[in-house]
Amino acid sequence: MDETSARSLTLHERMRGKIEVVSRKRIESADDLALLYTPGVAEPCRQIQADYQKSWELTRRGNLVAVITDGTAVLGLGDIGPAAGMPVMEGKCALFKEFGDVDAFPICVDTHDTDEFVRTVQLISKSFGGINLEDIAAPRCFEIERRLQDLCDIPVFHDDQNGTAIVVAAALENAIKVVGKPMGNLRIAMSGAGAAGIAIATLLTHVGFGNVLLCDRNGIICEGDEGLTAGKEAASHITNADHEHGTLADAMRGADVFIGVSGPGLVSAEMVSTMHEGIVFALANPTPEIMPDEAARGGAAVVGTGRSDFPNQINNVLVFPGIFKGALAARAPRITERMEMAAAHAIASIVDENKLAPDNIIPSALDKTVADVVAKAVADNVER
Amino acid sequence: MDETSARSLTLHERMRGKIEVVSRKRIESADDLALLYTPGVAEPCRQIQADYQKSWELTRRGNLVAVITDGTAVLGLGDIGPAAGMPVMEGKCALFKEFGDVDAFPICVDTHDTDEFVRTVQLISKSFGGINLEDIAAPRCFEIERRLQDLCDIPVFHDDQNGTAIVVAAALENAIKVVGKPMGNLRIAMSGAGAAGIAIATLLTHVGFGNVLLCDRNGIICEGDEGLTAGKEAASHITNADHEHGTLADAMRGADVFIGVSGPGLVSAEMVSTMHEGIVFALANPTPEIMPDEAARGGAAVVGTGRSDFPNQINNVLVFPGIFKGALAARAPRITERMEMAAAHAIASIVDENKLAPDNIIPSALDKTVADVVAKAVADNVER
Repeated sequence: MDETSARSLTLHERMRGKIEVVSRKRIESADDLALLYTPGVAEPCRQIQADYQKSWELTRRGNLVAVITDGTAVLGLGDIGPAAGMPVMEGKCALFKEFGDVDAFPICVDTHDTDEFVRTVQLISKSFGGINLEDIAAPRCFEIERRLQDLCDIPVFHDDQNGTAIVVAAALENAIKVVGKPMGNLRIAMSGAGAAGIAIATLLTHVGFGNVLLCDRNGIICEGDEGLTAGKEAASHITNADHEHGTLADAMRGADVFIGVSGPGLVSAEMVSTMHEGIVFALANPTPEIMPDEAARGGAAVVGTGRSDFPNQINNVLVFPGIFKGALAARAPRITERMEMAAAHAIASIVDENKLAPDNIIPSALDKTVADVVAKAVADNVER
Repeated sequence: MDETSARSLTLHERMRGKIEVVSRKRIESADDLALLYTPGVAEPCRQIQADYQKSWELTRRGNLVAVITDGTAVLGLGDIGPAAGMPVMEGKCALFKEFGDVDAFPICVDTHDTDEFVRTVQLISKSFGGINLEDIAAPRCFEIERRLQDLCDIPVFHDDQNGTAIVVAAALENAIKVVGKPMGNLRIAMSGAGAAGIAIATLLTHVGFGNVLLCDRNGIICEGDEGLTAGKEAASHITNADHEHGTLADAMRGADVFIGVSGPGLVSAEMVSTMHEGIVFALANPTPEIMPDEAARGGAAVVGTGRSDFPNQINNVLVFPGIFKGALAARAPRITERMEMAAAHAIASIVDENKLAPDNIIPSALDKTVADVVAKAVADNVER
């Protein structure tokens, strides 16, 4: 066990849970009891019964997100089940509160059946103001997100997909400013066509960064390929405009951008050296597709990773607290692509243009001012 | 709208939720992030994956109860649905924390289908250390509780049934001391054969207080009656030993105890006057079966209600925080009748024997020392 793991375990043993549910008011007197509980509480119940919208004002719903998983794709640990996934979900909830002042509560659903998972979440959704899906394996996560968003009257957001795509778009917006390339005709090579990869490819394409070449284990995904999953098939229609075939190395040759959401060590300095003044986002965690020093050796102009011990940490914590804070404030029924693009641009805009540099393209993951800026942008761009 | 209702509504509008989910640790540094979230959090996940029991130590589960309803029997309001039931559930969660330091989180399940409700709660149960069912209509609540307790490895407690029965047993233990009657041959007339009534009749019978005469709208329930629900049918086998037939007034004639969990004004001073030095627990809320002054006029020796504005408030808040605190501390897989009896006796024992009096049979609902005493008794009587 490495030192961080050992220290984390000790801390978890001592804390006995990273979140806590507290009363927002002390209950000391008979009057407190009468107002917060019976008989007074009957009146807010009646009000909500008469007007469902009041549930957002008279209960915690208006500031409350469910962080929900089935435990099938937890970190890099795979399908470890609902109980074992809980430390990650609690951590996420702690971040929601610390960074966005959004209350979040973790729920692990103990089923591998998509229909049952969707129905379970739907049935409890009226207790919350938003649903953050987390660490659900692809391709199931796509169907789950889509179906739940259709069934629920609150935003459903799969952070591994949407959150990652937004923070990558933010980082890329600033990275191309640093290297002086305009948006539009970038060649973007991507490694990893899971939930995150497909979401990133989709958002970057829709924003208009350029032509994405999305690679899985078998190389560049091309429209018409046999045996593609539904998610890859959908991506194949909007990526790889020239119908290229080949390996990740082929995709990277002449590319302006590399984005990895795959596995450790898949990219070499030599591959980076074939890029055109390359922007390298190697986001595999904890070990990136290529370490920053190696990427630099290959001539990368800008390097970002998911790690806090290198510059340009591309971390979802810049996204989800603010996205939900804004969506909740505006009582948005869903988080649309326009709201996602607004969030990405808001994050990018936080870095002072005069201070943009190869090692400064994205705000610090610890910057607690980010969520409010993102929230405002999201709320201003709500679509109903 | 009466004054309490109006003040409660204003308070609810201002508070925007009575509970809040907070982080148990500030997150300020990269080190905090690394320990509470990635990459450190992977280690507690692995530990729970290897040993499921560690979920009680490494996550909040060990101190966490779900307060779950379907919104079908909320207070006296009836079937008002999950969103409208939430103010009550949040209030209950606030009481759990304030009185027991137990974290509780409210979940409203949006279905009237028993199978679906049971399955939904089962699938999310591994996120919690206990389940407190609340305000679910009879007779569905009996089946739901029984099936969930069989399916889940954590305690399932229906407070409206079990909690009410325990606090009534506690109050009755002291009330008979006040009037100087021994346990065993009491005649106990009860009004109301819903979830609470049946649970009270069952527990009092099993404790051995005496012969319960359980009345519904049609009068005394008797073994062999046609058309009884499953719950009433079960109760008929252990109550009404002499197979009496008649009205509530008949049941009360010569009774030592009256317990009402029914509706306002169903009992007159004249009916009380036919009792034998009557103990009257008129628990319908907010308006009791008989007001205390009327009961006294009928010659009642001891009177209790559910209300805070009269002596002897018989309130579940004396039970549920401590019962779950004890069950969680002992990691009890269920709450058995022995644990319930221990809880009742613990509550009764808190009132100093020398201070027992007609207007002092039960601790104050605001007494925050009760939960620890109950918790110890419950933990000491765990059965596995």
